[in-house]
Amino acid sequence: MSNEVKLLAHTPDAERIVAAAARLCYSDTTACALMDGLDSQKTAAFLAHLRESGHFSPFEHATFSFAVDGISRVCSHQLVRHRLASYSQQSQRYVLMGEPRTVLPPSVAAHEGARSLFEETVRRSHEAYEALIALGVPREDARYLLPHGWETRLVVTMNARELHHFFSLRLCRRAQWEIQDLARKMLRLCRNVAPALFSPAGPACVTGHCLEAHPCGSPFSSVEELLL
Amino acid sequence: MSNEVKLLAHTPDAERIVAAAARLCYSDTTACALMDGLDSQKTAAFLAHLRESGHFSPFEHATFSFAVDGISRVCSHQLVRHRLASYSQQSQRYVLMGEPRTVLPPSVAAHEGARSLFEETVRRSHEAYEALIALGVPREDARYLLPHGWETRLVVTMNARELHHFFSLRLCRRAQWEIQDLARKMLRLCRNVAPALFSPAGPACVTGHCLEAHPCGSPFSSVEELLL
Amino acid sequence: MSNEVKLLAHTPDAERIVAAAARLCYSDTTACALMDGLDSQKTAAFLAHLRESGHFSPFEHATFSFAVDGISRVCSHQLVRHRLASYSQQSQRYVLMGEPRTVLPPSVAAHEGARSLFEETVRRSHEAYEALIALGVPREDARYLLPHGWETRLVVTMNARELHHFFSLRLCRRAQWEIQDLARKMLRLCRNVAPALFSPAGPACVTGHCLEAHPCGSPFSSVEELLL
Amino acid sequence: MSNEVKLLAHTPDAERIVAAAARLCYSDTTACALMDGLDSQKTAAFLAHLRESGHFSPFEHATFSFAVDGISRVCSHQLVRHRLASYSQQSQRYVLMGEPRTVLPPSVAAHEGARSLFEETVRRSHEAYEALIALGVPREDARYLLPHGWETRLVVTMNARELHHFFSLRLCRRAQWEIQDLARKMLRLCRNVAPALFSPAGPACVTGHCLEAHPCGSPFSSVEELLL
Repeated sequence: MSNEVKLLAHTPDAERIVAAAARLCYSDTTACALMDGLDSQKTAAFLAHLRESGHFSPFEHATFSFAVDGISRVCSHQLVRHRLASYSQQSQRYVLMGEPRTVLPPSVAAHEGARSLFEETVRRSHEAYEALIALGVPREDARYLLPHGWETRLVVTMNARELHHFFSLRLCRRAQWEIQDLARKMLRLCRNVAPALFSPAGPACVTGHCLEAHPCGSPFSSVEELLL
Repeated sequence: MSNEVKLLAHTPDAERIVAAAARLCYSDTTACALMDGLDSQKTAAFLAHLRESGHFSPFEHATFSFAVDGISRVCSHQLVRHRLASYSQQSQRYVLMGEPRTVLPPSVAAHEGARSLFEETVRRSHEAYEALIALGVPREDARYLLPHGWETRLVVTMNARELHHFFSLRLCRRAQWEIQDLARKMLRLCRNVAPALFSPAGPACVTGHCLEAHPCGSPFSSVEELLL
Repeated sequence: MSNEVKLLAHTPDAERIVAAAARLCYSDTTACALMDGLDSQKTAAFLAHLRESGHFSPFEHATFSFAVDGISRVCSHQLVRHRLASYSQQSQRYVLMGEPRTVLPPSVAAHEGARSLFEETVRRSHEAYEALIALGVPREDARYLLPHGWETRLVVTMNARELHHFFSLRLCRRAQWEIQDLARKMLRLCRNVAPALFSPAGPACVTGHCLEAHPCGSPFSSVEELLL
Repeated sequence: MSNEVKLLAHTPDAERIVAAAARLCYSDTTACALMDGLDSQKTAAFLAHLRESGHFSPFEHATFSFAVDGISRVCSHQLVRHRLASYSQQSQRYVLMGEPRTVLPPSVAAHEGARSLFEETVRRSHEAYEALIALGVPREDARYLLPHGWETRLVVTMNARELHHFFSLRLCRRAQWEIQDLARKMLRLCRNVAPALFSPAGPACVTGHCLEAHPCGSPFSSVEELLL
């Protein structure tokens, strides 16, 4: 996949803040004093306890902002269905789509004939887009011809509770490969900076108990396996 | 426009419920007693007072569910950015797109050459989609070739507060024509069943004070004008 | 308990709307046509399938509005923590609290000495509230003396997905008795008008798998038992 | 006021992230490249433009977490009504309230007789709370006697868009003095670390156009005045 996912920013000291906020509920002292008393081992143990009990509300105090470049509009349409998150997305109404840039699905890439038909069709659609603009059609209307796989960019911010929910749905093998790939990259970035908040994270096969009426048949055995 | 928008359901007696809920905040009696005391004239006057003061929170008690058929995926991608709402949308991963069905922008329809190029490109893209499927590419990947203007269906539920927000943004002349058209149809349906909740409703030119740095230059003079 | 909970309004034909919205995702037909094809048996079977798979998003299309009178401010403070809901609550800033009206906890009522101390303290606090007002203290400040158990009224609207979440947390034996009682009354009202949306509903012991690190030790065996 | 409000954490480089996210919508480049091109002057100018146009959605990418100690349960009940935020609050179900700690309203403090009646009533209520516990009443029920003004602690996280909304409502002179005081402290902390995101911020008299049917009569002339 040629997309790029970067962690733009995240709550500093996120693990201790989540742990201190959770402890506050059951303590007679301040959040700041609680933070002072938390080393990384105690923090990790306490976060594990919260996750196992399903008490995710303190995870909301930690937020993560990602710059995502080069996913398809198919994928972004799925992504923005997660409503407890914030999005700023490149507008096709205002920005001219100057060159054909479309995500190529692996199932298409794997078959020479499929691939050349795909690329040919993308090229022609983009030519028609440019021809419409030359005829005076506004960009926002000419784009009705651009293929769904067209690339987009966005900034997305989610808190760690919603990220857990997102990873549970989108790292499942039943999710589409492109959003799985995006979620995998996001989870790797999160685990780099806040491992204790996201160990584990992922679909029910990794964190709990799969409820799907028609399960995939090849559950992941661990977060490490799904992150390979 | 060939799309269809129907009101599937709405909160019964929505106007009186909103008015009674608002009154409850300042009264020493029950919501049911307050409803009994509200005739349609008092209700309308009280709702007007709430709207003018910007006190929209009681409007959340009234919800409206719409069946929307035949809008483009361009329009649905804009629509689902409204996060305080509920959506169920037809999946292109599972449903076979058997025939070319694409929304034709008026700016394209108006120009014979543009129109035939548009239709030709849509037809070819759909043929390529079918060819990929014949080669064994899954539907969810073949659709990367379908044009953005492809038609979709969905059910959307919003409460009256969020509808007011939606109408304020999407009935503005700066919104794209397709979502303006959708919003107009939704507002007409709302006003049929709950006129006092939505008189007026719409962009700042109709309900208040336009803040746009680059205004459209032709503000609406009334809700009636924008609903024409 | 002397509180009163009434169902003010709910989405008409809620079960079929939820089922049709869910089917829409996998069909090539309209929501209206799908509704026409759903009798109550098919609807119930399909809703059971959604619940068992954990696919609750279509449940959001059904909303329920309740009038709640006579719960304590303790209970309302817990209730409004559910953020995916709408509230209109009686204001103590504006409404004069003319008589002592406080929720009496069963654990206090059960012990004669505790009960008389409780009632005496409530009476004195209310007298001090009235004395402060007589001295010119605003209502909004005098109420700082009113006990937490003081009664309040509100209108609350939730959709069926959030109601399921609410019932899962607040019908658990570990929730406080007062919000358990409120949730039980709300669930009975929901099941009267839309049984297929809420069979079953409730804590993990009834609908799934308890995750509590310290479980209550006496799980409910069925929704019927918890509704007794 | 004896409460304490501390900024626990905030999005690093928040101003540039918000500005870059907003620019992304209209650019053909990446968020990272956009950030590189933004010095503090350009950032401030661009954020001012967004605020003036009412385009607040990119402000959601910046979040702020506060530790709040010593506000009353009156104030926390108002605070948690802001639903687009995250809260962890000290539980009176689990934590023993060992000493009388109640917020004293200035209107009560200003009058000697009122103050002594207030303090006497708080003391008696707390004694009754302790007596109930001695009789075997659970903490969660004994607290039904504690006065509304009882102190609480919490951690709250809001993004900058919701903070603007919060400041617009709660820095208005019509809000209660205690939440005004809390909001003022929060705004000062925000402006220390991200001035360009919050200049100005506050009620309509400072940022726009007051809609209240019954305005306060003494509008603020500037943010500086309201922060005094």
